[in-house]
Amino acid sequence: MVVSLRLPSLSSLFLPSVSRRSPAVLRRHHHHILRTPVFAASFSAQTTVSETDDRVDTQKSNRVQDQAVTPRSKDFNAWYLDVIEQAELADYGPVRGTMVIRPYGYAIWEAIQDYLNVKFKETGHSNMYFPQFIPYSFIEKEASHVEGFSPELAVVTIGGGKELEEKLVVRPTSETIVNHMFTQWIHSYRDLPLMVNQWANVTRWEMRTKPFVRTLEFLWQEGHTAHATPEEAEKEAIQMIDVYTKFAYEQTAIPVIAGRKSKVETFAGAVKTYTIEAMMGDRKALQAGTSHNLGQNFSRAFGTQFTDESGLRQHVWQTSWAVSTRFVGGIIMTHGDDTGLMLPPKIAPIQVVIIPIWKKDDDRAVVLNAASSVKEALHAAGIKVKLDDSDQRTPGWKFNFWEMKGVPLRIEIGPRDVSSQSVVVSRRDVPGKQGKVFGISMEPSVLEAYIKDKLDEIQSSLLEKAKSFRDSNIVDVSSYDELKVAISHGKWARGPWSAGDKEELRVKEETGATIRCFPFEQPRGIKSCLMTGNPAEEVAIFAKSY
Amino acid sequence: MVVSLRLPSLSSLFLPSVSRRSPAVLRRHHHHILRTPVFAASFSAQTTVSETDDRVDTQKSNRVQDQAVTPRSKDFNAWYLDVIEQAELADYGPVRGTMVIRPYGYAIWEAIQDYLNVKFKETGHSNMYFPQFIPYSFIEKEASHVEGFSPELAVVTIGGGKELEEKLVVRPTSETIVNHMFTQWIHSYRDLPLMVNQWANVTRWEMRTKPFVRTLEFLWQEGHTAHATPEEAEKEAIQMIDVYTKFAYEQTAIPVIAGRKSKVETFAGAVKTYTIEAMMGDRKALQAGTSHNLGQNFSRAFGTQFTDESGLRQHVWQTSWAVSTRFVGGIIMTHGDDTGLMLPPKIAPIQVVIIPIWKKDDDRAVVLNAASSVKEALHAAGIKVKLDDSDQRTPGWKFNFWEMKGVPLRIEIGPRDVSSQSVVVSRRDVPGKQGKVFGISMEPSVLEAYIKDKLDEIQSSLLEKAKSFRDSNIVDVSSYDELKVAISHGKWARGPWSAGDKEELRVKEETGATIRCFPFEQPRGIKSCLMTGNPAEEVAIFAKSY
Repeated sequence: MVVSLRLPSLSSLFLPSVSRRSPAVLRRHHHHILRTPVFAASFSAQTTVSETDDRVDTQKSNRVQDQAVTPRSKDFNAWYLDVIEQAELADYGPVRGTMVIRPYGYAIWEAIQDYLNVKFKETGHSNMYFPQFIPYSFIEKEASHVEGFSPELAVVTIGGGKELEEKLVVRPTSETIVNHMFTQWIHSYRDLPLMVNQWANVTRWEMRTKPFVRTLEFLWQEGHTAHATPEEAEKEAIQMIDVYTKFAYEQTAIPVIAGRKSKVETFAGAVKTYTIEAMMGDRKALQAGTSHNLGQNFSRAFGTQFTDESGLRQHVWQTSWAVSTRFVGGIIMTHGDDTGLMLPPKIAPIQVVIIPIWKKDDDRAVVLNAASSVKEALHAAGIKVKLDDSDQRTPGWKFNFWEMKGVPLRIEIGPRDVSSQSVVVSRRDVPGKQGKVFGISMEPSVLEAYIKDKLDEIQSSLLEKAKSFRDSNIVDVSSYDELKVAISHGKWARGPWSAGDKEELRVKEETGATIRCFPFEQPRGIKSCLMTGNPAEEVAIFAKSY
Repeated sequence: MVVSLRLPSLSSLFLPSVSRRSPAVLRRHHHHILRTPVFAASFSAQTTVSETDDRVDTQKSNRVQDQAVTPRSKDFNAWYLDVIEQAELADYGPVRGTMVIRPYGYAIWEAIQDYLNVKFKETGHSNMYFPQFIPYSFIEKEASHVEGFSPELAVVTIGGGKELEEKLVVRPTSETIVNHMFTQWIHSYRDLPLMVNQWANVTRWEMRTKPFVRTLEFLWQEGHTAHATPEEAEKEAIQMIDVYTKFAYEQTAIPVIAGRKSKVETFAGAVKTYTIEAMMGDRKALQAGTSHNLGQNFSRAFGTQFTDESGLRQHVWQTSWAVSTRFVGGIIMTHGDDTGLMLPPKIAPIQVVIIPIWKKDDDRAVVLNAASSVKEALHAAGIKVKLDDSDQRTPGWKFNFWEMKGVPLRIEIGPRDVSSQSVVVSRRDVPGKQGKVFGISMEPSVLEAYIKDKLDEIQSSLLEKAKSFRDSNIVDVSSYDELKVAISHGKWARGPWSAGDKEELRVKEETGATIRCFPFEQPRGIKSCLMTGNPAEEVAIFAKSY
């Protein structure tokens, strides 16, 4: 019964072209996998589910053997899907392209929420909630908005058993319903600025989906603001892309490049779109957050007006900005390695895992006792710590498992450590002996300080590593030929650009790359457009993207 | 433009039968309203939007005059809708029966979330997220579930511009999709218990809607667990109704009655439903939270099995439990009075409002300065405090406004208070002079201690008041005639019951009352069923309900 209900695996669901190892194949590869460097921990990885247990729980022991992921260096996409599955971040939903976010993946999203929610409030925004059903007619009011979103809509046509008079769109984004409400709340300049945010689910009927990166339904926050002047709206749009940039660098250790989208890539209905672009481990770009200056496009379409100080009726100036569960995908693809996930300490659901080690039964109690004390001490210090005291796995199995899950630090405690009142600490981001330090005192204040220091060090180190990876993969180009070479080598191309939409689309057709942004950080002086040779005031970054 | 876009008001939208005062009528009643005791604050309520301002901002000044609500004692339903509108808790969405939760209302929901989220994690649950689109066929798998929910479904039939092969249900609740996923995650007894929760929106196509209490889309949390034994499932179902009960009493000051639903009122698909029932100010019952023991109903329908310790395949035993934005409606209807909202301090978005008072311009700076210091001191002490320093309203207007918004404590600071380094503190729940204390020292530690003490006192006092209201409106009955009398007087009837479903439905038809629950707290001994005279082991509570 269970087997017959199981749907295709993540890979086959999201990218049917990727060939997928069957469980049988996986079992055959088991011993091979254990011998690869991926699983070369200090202890040989063995399941404690013995042969005699197979009858009882075949599926469980298969899953145990399952834990190796395709090395990232071998097949980035297969690696990504393996990590999501093996680290239990997400699973496929029953409807094509939908995703179930599992507790470990959801905890990363909660860390994102916790940080941003505070920042949004600090910058004067209030949370609220708009209904997700939007009358179809609303979507049609703003011309470019309907053009952008109508191919992606999910539409409710039946409610309470009856055909509906007006079809309802399941929100793909909320600018239309927000403006409908704003017309009722905004009367005079005294009602401005109006600055709100909602945490919500949105639906876009995407054809090519990929867990976290692009799913039919996803979770996000969408900020919506209305202002009395275009200057205030612009300032707000910039402020929020700055909040996102700081978040990306400081919390997720992703060195995004912030900038302005080209006209072609601007949000459907916006005047300007600001973006943060992140370089993934396969050097493709991921648009990780956007902030739109909507000008008066929606306020004119919906009649969102206010009476200014001189008594005149004016349309409000607006912004909207969003970050979604896609960010989780960005974290996976920025920091992960052949072994699996690697989480920046500041957003890791588990920052430290403690693995107790014993061979003789006599040692068990004494080791577990010490491990518990260490756990309590770190927990009391505000560190997210897990003690894996399960009897069912060997220490080696646990090492591999928690490395694959990307936990930044591992503490090992064996009988000899207990005798010397010390522990062994291993860094996830520095493989092998180099990342392992022996003899760290168990004394709570010493250990706590050491661990906090190491977590900070890992956080910085991940950012630095991602920065140098990014910088070594951006090529400055001054001609279209150079751009083509850079893109064909899988790199990002940065070069002066003042050509039109037509030329931009030509680049996309011929190279697969799009303008990711005109970065805020610009070299000085007027340059020549790489495509036309005309004067160009700005450089643009071109890259293939998700 | 703005006017033509405005939709009917909340009252006319949600309950077309209630006649609604037009703005013109409101204006005519303005002076009358200001003279009623409702608005009898120490300062006469006047808007500072002068006559000359009318041209500039007619709608704004109307809204100012609008702030009086229909007295609760006059028309409970009109009062409820007025409070929601005037206190800016919610607004109607463009689609019939949908609701926009405004920042002040959403902040109450956030307080509910903050408390429960911690409790759920403390009791071993992890948050995650399931997709909201459920294949129609899933809903049909559990027989009583489809019977209960099919009339209320919103159905997506079009996605990405195409008619879908299988219609998708927008989740009314997630037991079906949860079980579909559980079959893939649960293999052996070692995978149990599996205990998860999600914060999400759900859709039920309700015919009679009422903001917060019953809306087409609402927000909730839904917990879902799977266990190896029926005893564990039962323990979990009880544990969660206990969490809700404690929450209701300690945070919202609502003295709910916890108990078991009758068979007729049990959740579609559950073996047992536990409930907390709250008595609203109009003495109607509100089901404020439920916890279901699902037995093996869904696990059998979906084949959710595990291998037990002896190697046998068994179906898991499950629970689900939920609390929704309906709780906000419960808070409004439990504590509100003629003047408007009255919020228990523990869930109030603003616990203390500071109103600076000055007449001469000379006093302005000195008063505002003192008010700011008081605000900072209280804020630093973790008290949710707002300083209303707007120049546009009189102190009297502000008194009325924040009373209507239900803020538990008001601090008044005038020039004489500054001289004596003291403040005046007024309680929202004790009207007039009785609730007003003069000469509380401004010294931060003294004031902080006083305020915290008062907030605790108000929290307890609201609970005690609601308890005695509840207890004075429950009548013990021993016959059907007595039950009918109690119900016809708008009270709850509590009496021995061992009759069948048919008799229960007869009571509903003849009196409009249903069995709210068999309360956990039972008198001892065997009694005679009020309907049949047969022996009855339990008393049931009958009431009309929302």
